Amino acid sequence: MKLVIIGTGNVASALGKAFFTSGHTIEQVIGKSSNNVTKLAKRLKAEPVLFPDPPVLNADCYMIAVKDDAIPAVALYLKKVKGIVVHTSGSVPLSALGRSFSKKGVFYPVDTIKNNKPVSFTNVPVCIEGNTPVTRRKLLELAASVTEKTFLLDSAQRAVLHLAAVFSNNFTNHLHTSAFGILNENNLPTDLLHQLILSTARNAVSPGPEASQTGPAIRNDKLTIKAHRELLSNNKRLLGIYNSLTADITAHYAEVQKKQ
Amino acid sequence: MKLVIIGTGNVASALGKAFFTSGHTIEQVIGKSSNNVTKLAKRLKAEPVLFPDPPVLNADCYMIAVKDDAIPAVALYLKKVKGIVVHTSGSVPLSALGRSFSKKGVFYPVDTIKNNKPVSFTNVPVCIEGNTPVTRRKLLELAASVTEKTFLLDSAQRAVLHLAAVFSNNFTNHLHTSAFGILNENNLPTDLLHQLILSTARNAVSPGPEASQTGPAIRNDKLTIKAHRELLSNNKRLLGIYNSLTADITAHYAEVQKKQ
Repeated sequence: MKLVIIGTGNVASALGKAFFTSGHTIEQVIGKSSNNVTKLAKRLKAEPVLFPDPPVLNADCYMIAVKDDAIPAVALYLKKVKGIVVHTSGSVPLSALGRSFSKKGVFYPVDTIKNNKPVSFTNVPVCIEGNTPVTRRKLLELAASVTEKTFLLDSAQRAVLHLAAVFSNNFTNHLHTSAFGILNENNLPTDLLHQLILSTARNAVSPGPEASQTGPAIRNDKLTIKAHRELLSNNKRLLGIYNSLTADITAHYAEVQKKQ
Repeated sequence: MKLVIIGTGNVASALGKAFFTSGHTIEQVIGKSSNNVTKLAKRLKAEPVLFPDPPVLNADCYMIAVKDDAIPAVALYLKKVKGIVVHTSGSVPLSALGRSFSKKGVFYPVDTIKNNKPVSFTNVPVCIEGNTPVTRRKLLELAASVTEKTFLLDSAQRAVLHLAAVFSNNFTNHLHTSAFGILNENNLPTDLLHQLILSTARNAVSPGPEASQTGPAIRNDKLTIKAHRELLSNNKRLLGIYNSLTADITAHYAEVQKKQ
């Protein structure tokens, strides 16, 4: 496919590299920062275009990989193009692209994409939405050229997935921040937890999180819970999180047991 | 070293295999289930001993790898042995071993140890406590024979570490259960989140969780937060967790910003 990438951030460059590596032509890289546009365009053997200079009109697909709130403005800028226009956001509905495009969709890679990540998308699920059967098929093909895991999700389903991703990424990450804070305050090195963090994730993938749940809350170990609360007595915020998650684990497994 | 393993569960067998592989002699495996004792003893070329048959008295080290609340009873059972007696628990103080041993300590591997794990302990931090300098040195040597990461922690420090581990393991794992629940309720496959779960853990290890925090809460994206709350309006438990973690992320990064 002939592709145009709009954006030069982590998602734009990771996607650009994945498409380039799997043999697609990146016609243009479009962005606001001359420096970033030049750099990414060079890597992808693409023409650098400084926004709002006009884009080429006849590429097969235009990938908007910018911050969520900038998507409508970029859609406006692309108004005259003929190819499929997609955005790459988990939390933004297809409708954010407006009504001007006959072929539009979403190409959402379900990962936290950082610059230090490898280019390979093989294990990254890509969720596709498209406004017509042909658009969906083309986007699924494009996704299948970089990953083994393609899914067809409409905007409502993607909103649910994005909410679940907030729990599995944003919230768990913040709990690691909290755990590191507990260690830091007590002059203990945070790398004490590295292996545990990685194992926890691997076990959540297989055999799955319910089968992997351990700890004082699930075994209703009141003595340990009491000791933990005492250790947190000077930290109201962490104590609040401790209490709400402990209560939820207890309630969840009481329900699980009732069902059995 | 000549070792005796008490227990036949995940920790006992993982530790036993690690010690055996690195060249130690496992003299006895002691446990309550004849079947499990025979099986593990065979793997470790050790003598199987059915509790409460008496243990050999002159091994170098006795590893108690049983459930937390069974530790005092096992300590009583080992009363007459001459070697170092250690337990392997994160949440139990050294004092739980009682006063009968002249050489006692703790050998706590900081990981969630499951049967499906590889035997290698190379990356698993092991936290050592010992009641005398010689005991500490011997236990550190024993730890160093199976892992590159050894730490000296007293019971108070280990209690803090165990609390932090509850955040990084028990609580994050439960959030994955919550996320999978959201997907299940909406007939979406849970493997949509697998890659994200693994990446989140890797990013928490490096560059670290604060540098990796993303999502609506840290960028104070009120529209997305409102949409998420609406999606959770029929699930009070998950809504409660959503609200408390969102509030905590906001409060935490407001503090971080103030300090900068």
